[in-house]
Amino acid sequence: MSSTPFGDAILARSDELARHSDVALADVPPGQARPLTVTYLTAAHRACAADLVRWMRDDGFDEAGIDAVGNVVGVYRGSDPAARRLLTGSHYDTVRNAGRYDGRLGILVPMACVRELKRRGRRLPFDLEVVGFAEEEGQRFPLTFIGSGALVGQFDPAWLALRDADGVTLGEAMRAAGHDPADIAALKRDAAKYLGFIEVHIEQGPVLSTAGLPLGVVTAINGSVRFVGEMTGVACHAGTTPMGQRRDAATGVAELALYVERRAAQVPSLVGTVGQMHVPDGSINVVPGRCRFSLDLRAPSNALRDALVADVLAELAAIAGRRGLQVTLTETMRAGAAPSDPGLQRRWERAVAATGVPVFHLPSGAGHDAMKLHEAMPQAMLFMRGDNDGISHNPLEAINAADTQQAVEAFLHFLEQLAGELE
Amino acid sequence: MSSTPFGDAILARSDELARHSDVALADVPPGQARPLTVTYLTAAHRACAADLVRWMRDDGFDEAGIDAVGNVVGVYRGSDPAARRLLTGSHYDTVRNAGRYDGRLGILVPMACVRELKRRGRRLPFDLEVVGFAEEEGQRFPLTFIGSGALVGQFDPAWLALRDADGVTLGEAMRAAGHDPADIAALKRDAAKYLGFIEVHIEQGPVLSTAGLPLGVVTAINGSVRFVGEMTGVACHAGTTPMGQRRDAATGVAELALYVERRAAQVPSLVGTVGQMHVPDGSINVVPGRCRFSLDLRAPSNALRDALVADVLAELAAIAGRRGLQVTLTETMRAGAAPSDPGLQRRWERAVAATGVPVFHLPSGAGHDAMKLHEAMPQAMLFMRGDNDGISHNPLEAINAADTQQAVEAFLHFLEQLAGELE
Repeated sequence: MSSTPFGDAILARSDELARHSDVALADVPPGQARPLTVTYLTAAHRACAADLVRWMRDDGFDEAGIDAVGNVVGVYRGSDPAARRLLTGSHYDTVRNAGRYDGRLGILVPMACVRELKRRGRRLPFDLEVVGFAEEEGQRFPLTFIGSGALVGQFDPAWLALRDADGVTLGEAMRAAGHDPADIAALKRDAAKYLGFIEVHIEQGPVLSTAGLPLGVVTAINGSVRFVGEMTGVACHAGTTPMGQRRDAATGVAELALYVERRAAQVPSLVGTVGQMHVPDGSINVVPGRCRFSLDLRAPSNALRDALVADVLAELAAIAGRRGLQVTLTETMRAGAAPSDPGLQRRWERAVAATGVPVFHLPSGAGHDAMKLHEAMPQAMLFMRGDNDGISHNPLEAINAADTQQAVEAFLHFLEQLAGELE
Repeated sequence: MSSTPFGDAILARSDELARHSDVALADVPPGQARPLTVTYLTAAHRACAADLVRWMRDDGFDEAGIDAVGNVVGVYRGSDPAARRLLTGSHYDTVRNAGRYDGRLGILVPMACVRELKRRGRRLPFDLEVVGFAEEEGQRFPLTFIGSGALVGQFDPAWLALRDADGVTLGEAMRAAGHDPADIAALKRDAAKYLGFIEVHIEQGPVLSTAGLPLGVVTAINGSVRFVGEMTGVACHAGTTPMGQRRDAATGVAELALYVERRAAQVPSLVGTVGQMHVPDGSINVVPGRCRFSLDLRAPSNALRDALVADVLAELAAIAGRRGLQVTLTETMRAGAAPSDPGLQRRWERAVAATGVPVFHLPSGAGHDAMKLHEAMPQAMLFMRGDNDGISHNPLEAINAADTQQAVEAFLHFLEQLAGELE
């Protein structure tokens, strides 16, 4: 028998789910792999949901079904119907040309736990509710977190008129899938009835891979702020304008990019990125009069994030002042940090240690469903190492059975810790 | 009577020449100025040439005509037909939407001198040959310096098949203007028969304006090298990739741009520019995997230029090494520096000093007809201040009558110095 039965089973189920894709087989050139793309409420998406429901029933869930936004919801009942529930899960939709584990791992790991508990005849003293969120990636409609948003009461009926690239409205897509949007409001969970939310997810970055560790305890989902901006100086002749008489917009942006890099590197877990940098209509022999740029700044607490933003904006103003440049800047996104609940995080630490893995902390640089649930209840995440340096949103995304086995064992340990406290 | 009669006359003639433009009056929206665009061998271009020939005759030139490439050539004969000639001039074609003085000043100033010499009944001991070069700016055909190139024997008959944007070949344009391309080879001057070439030109930069001086003696036309290149790193998630694990192509280019700026500023008269800087398909939340850039490096001697290039390329390699980036680089242009002839430069210095202006030296960052003549004979240029911080290639290009008056007086002084040495 394999030493990684849980891991093997989850990899096999991930492969099975990956048979469903929005990309028609007929559109795939001969000899090429079929890209994995599963966007909200397409036929492939609904086929994934049907598989999950079928597997949940097979695993021994007491309830399993699809709710009014397309979430797959399974409940493994506990011994005390009056006790508060534990909520867990992640999303089953994907980006375009995705990997197989982003989101799905966080559904399949607790399902494996339920299957094992059922096999052992073990009932926890609380209900375990596992949700496969229908939408997180924002690929089909100009919305993200539709699935987890519904659980915290965030569904705006005005969104029903939003259209996908083919002109289909969200409302039409929902009704075609058999959902009644009027039922969505009732999906909101009463936080008082929950112990909290936990989520397992692949790291989607290189940190655990570099550390040589299969699991990492998430301390916070980073808060972030994004800007787009432009510096304006004076376009002039690159041959006849002495260095001391220039107002070069591109070297202004260059200074900013290097400052962002330096400042973010000063504090572990901060990240800062100038992802866009462009001299419009730039010529080899013209000193840049304009340069566009973007800023993406993230930190594990709002205080760290705001200090980073303040320093970057102060430096931007200083650069502009020194160089005689004008600056325009527009904030395009601001998301608060979601620090992990200390109690839930501590249980992840004990669970990781119990599997024999050193406890390693890291923040989450990307957003996750837990960020949405954070608005209603305590949450804490567990990251699992991705192979190939943690590459994600890419067909090269990979995990291995041994790491996955440890993730399931850590999850089981988490459940038994909580059970021990309540029993 | 005006205290600046030569200046007034040249400004008036510049305005008269500016009536001719390739842009039809019918195409100019009401209330807007007609853009000045005079490209090689158009009707406007030929009208300018006709004006120049007519004015040369009126000024007292002994010979005035249009040669086989369209250059306007006038000769004011000296007292000794066996003596070597002095050659001077500049171009009368323009860029699109140009100013009125770029090139033309260098024809009109020696014409004003001839008019004055004729008025005084003064013959120099050498012929003065004034050329209005037909083409320098490279606007109509993919060629530059057609006019001055012909005088140094650089006309390749293969060019006759090159086409303008309307599909007209250079050969067709020449024949339509009454020129026989077979006659061009004979335009090559025998350098042994010339004392050298001098050229007056607007500075096209802010240096004289900043120094508060109307005239400046050019020490060299800068040599230059141009490159286009690309740095390649790894595109990755801006949220999940720690600062220490990135290979960001854009911060690599940013470092390069700031190094170029710093290195060029170390030596007066060097200039270095990253005019193009672009992250292809850059996203706010993706660490740049690629960044394109250009390099334009110029210096008043080939040795200084080559040292600048060597340092920049060494730094580029160092940046790439430190950051784990790949670099591609293509040299797109290399032009040798054209240092001024010491003897001719010294006469410009004395001439400037004689008009009461402090002698100020500067290199020419842009290319000029003198760069082409440099290949055959000694040359030296005189720069005149442009108003509006020296803006050029722009309708805002401006000069004033007082500065122009001093340029004519300096030119007359140059001629009399040379005469004194020869008489």
